[in-house]
Amino acid sequence: MDSVQVVLGIDIGGTNTVFGLVNKNGRCFYKNQIPTEANLPAENLFARLFNTFNSEVLLKRENYELVGIGIGAPSANIYRGSIENPSNFNWGYVDAVKMVEQYYALPVLVTNDANVAAVGEMMYGRAKNMDNFILITLGTGLGSGIVVNRKILYGKDGFAGELGHVIAEENGRYCNCGRRGCLETYASATGICRTVFEFLSMYNDESTLRDYSFNQLTSKHIFNAALKGDKIALLAFEYTGAKLGIALANSVAHLNPEAIIIFGGLARSGDLIIGSMKDNLEKNLLPVYKNSVEILTSGLMESENAAILGAAALIWKEIIKSESIVQELKKIGIKTN
Amino acid sequence: MDSVQVVLGIDIGGTNTVFGLVNKNGRCFYKNQIPTEANLPAENLFARLFNTFNSEVLLKRENYELVGIGIGAPSANIYRGSIENPSNFNWGYVDAVKMVEQYYALPVLVTNDANVAAVGEMMYGRAKNMDNFILITLGTGLGSGIVVNRKILYGKDGFAGELGHVIAEENGRYCNCGRRGCLETYASATGICRTVFEFLSMYNDESTLRDYSFNQLTSKHIFNAALKGDKIALLAFEYTGAKLGIALANSVAHLNPEAIIIFGGLARSGDLIIGSMKDNLEKNLLPVYKNSVEILTSGLMESENAAILGAAALIWKEIIKSESIVQELKKIGIKTN
Repeated sequence: MDSVQVVLGIDIGGTNTVFGLVNKNGRCFYKNQIPTEANLPAENLFARLFNTFNSEVLLKRENYELVGIGIGAPSANIYRGSIENPSNFNWGYVDAVKMVEQYYALPVLVTNDANVAAVGEMMYGRAKNMDNFILITLGTGLGSGIVVNRKILYGKDGFAGELGHVIAEENGRYCNCGRRGCLETYASATGICRTVFEFLSMYNDESTLRDYSFNQLTSKHIFNAALKGDKIALLAFEYTGAKLGIALANSVAHLNPEAIIIFGGLARSGDLIIGSMKDNLEKNLLPVYKNSVEILTSGLMESENAAILGAAALIWKEIIKSESIVQELKKIGIKTN
Repeated sequence: MDSVQVVLGIDIGGTNTVFGLVNKNGRCFYKNQIPTEANLPAENLFARLFNTFNSEVLLKRENYELVGIGIGAPSANIYRGSIENPSNFNWGYVDAVKMVEQYYALPVLVTNDANVAAVGEMMYGRAKNMDNFILITLGTGLGSGIVVNRKILYGKDGFAGELGHVIAEENGRYCNCGRRGCLETYASATGICRTVFEFLSMYNDESTLRDYSFNQLTSKHIFNAALKGDKIALLAFEYTGAKLGIALANSVAHLNPEAIIIFGGLARSGDLIIGSMKDNLEKNLLPVYKNSVEILTSGLMESENAAILGAAALIWKEIIKSESIVQELKKIGIKTN
């Protein structure tokens, strides 16, 4: 039987690390998850992960040919192959690629989860035919991956695309980064909770959300309340979308993208957030950009394996690029290898 | 005698159009200017320009080999080779590249003046060794050229890099684009005049600037007053730099550039504007970007022929790129042509 070429995609989260095998077409063959245990050193996570993976997969099923390993992780830097002092991890600076190469003599790439999601959208999601777009992840914070000419925009040091930290409001909400008014203090799962608390203080409407403490409230509660017509919850979604739309009008003036794709838990709230996002984006666009930017929800998220697909796509995209160069050279009569 | 390869660089301005011949090393061999006469059709400008150029240069000096024509123009679109309804021109939509190709069977490229200046900085100015930077032109308005991996970022429709129209102040000054608070209503030659009028109304300090009407006042008057220690003028420069620095902190969060290069009349005011620009940029940067972005004044502007050099660089950059591909192919034994 012919072996199936697969990439191991790994998504390192604050609580759990998920991983799985993905073939070139984005089919997922195996997946699993282990606790990240972010208080222990990174070596510990990789040792447990590869131990599990080797015993469950590599040692058993010989019809998989592993061709590379793609990793999504917080504070990852693709230039250095590093994961650098991720917040809430006790890791410090980790030479992630070197660490993984000690286990496997294969190509290894690591970048942050928003860039991973953007590459995933190009390979398997909404951006298969897009050259220029912005991907926004709405999780605890707001992450972004910017694509220019089908390449992730990394910038000078690999830190481009921190749209969670553009200033959405001068002297606005305090941000963990030490500044004030950053977009992610408004447009994220925690941002919408902060908005609900602001609105509970401002309006007199009855709301089931008045029964939650700040520490109890989650964006899921707000979503459920909104579905039942809770006015505070609906206003909070509208405000979140508006803040996002206004801020992204400035991003469009930088990048002239064909679409903005939103990803992550809050993206599942769909029209609750997208309606006001679209309206406020359009209202704030320079005339030359009007009606030229699509707002889409992630195509990856339709799969249960979005994070694994994205991480694997990091490697598959490079492999496909090499293959197309080899093809081009063959056309003009040059053999490689 | 060997002929010298030259590119014709053309800079189309609202009042005058300057043009000249530039060799690969950025030496300027001939230059001239004619009135643009923006009330007449574009055909008229090109006919006069090429008539002058042919009779003064091509028909006389046979030791020039013309290899291409680069054009900087307002509202130019490189994808379509067009100049599209530039404000204060009676041109409408002009197929500029096609129009020029009727005169010469040569490569012709057209883009806006900020992109032209950015390419010029890469070829002949401050950015010879830079992969990622932002160029800002401070003229009547604020233009920008964004460079990613040594390529101009054009985006989906060729309209990327409109940093003059990011919102610097919600509900701020009215902009010609129909919106409010755009960066160029603060940071530009007209922006600083508006600031002086705001400050004249706010402060009681004596100032020579109190003798000018709004229609009389120019940024040059403000510059001269600042040099003499005029407090209103000094404050206006500080405020202009601050608005620019704060807005560009958001651009850095998008692009992670190695430098921001400023170009145009207001850039000549040097430290008057750059000091507060730097301070306010640094103060507003996310920690990961701090002390990583240089602020520089244009290297092209040291020449008297900045606009011509930039326009010619559009073509020279493409020629050099082709030459390096040919060299690479030769190395592996492939002959081209």
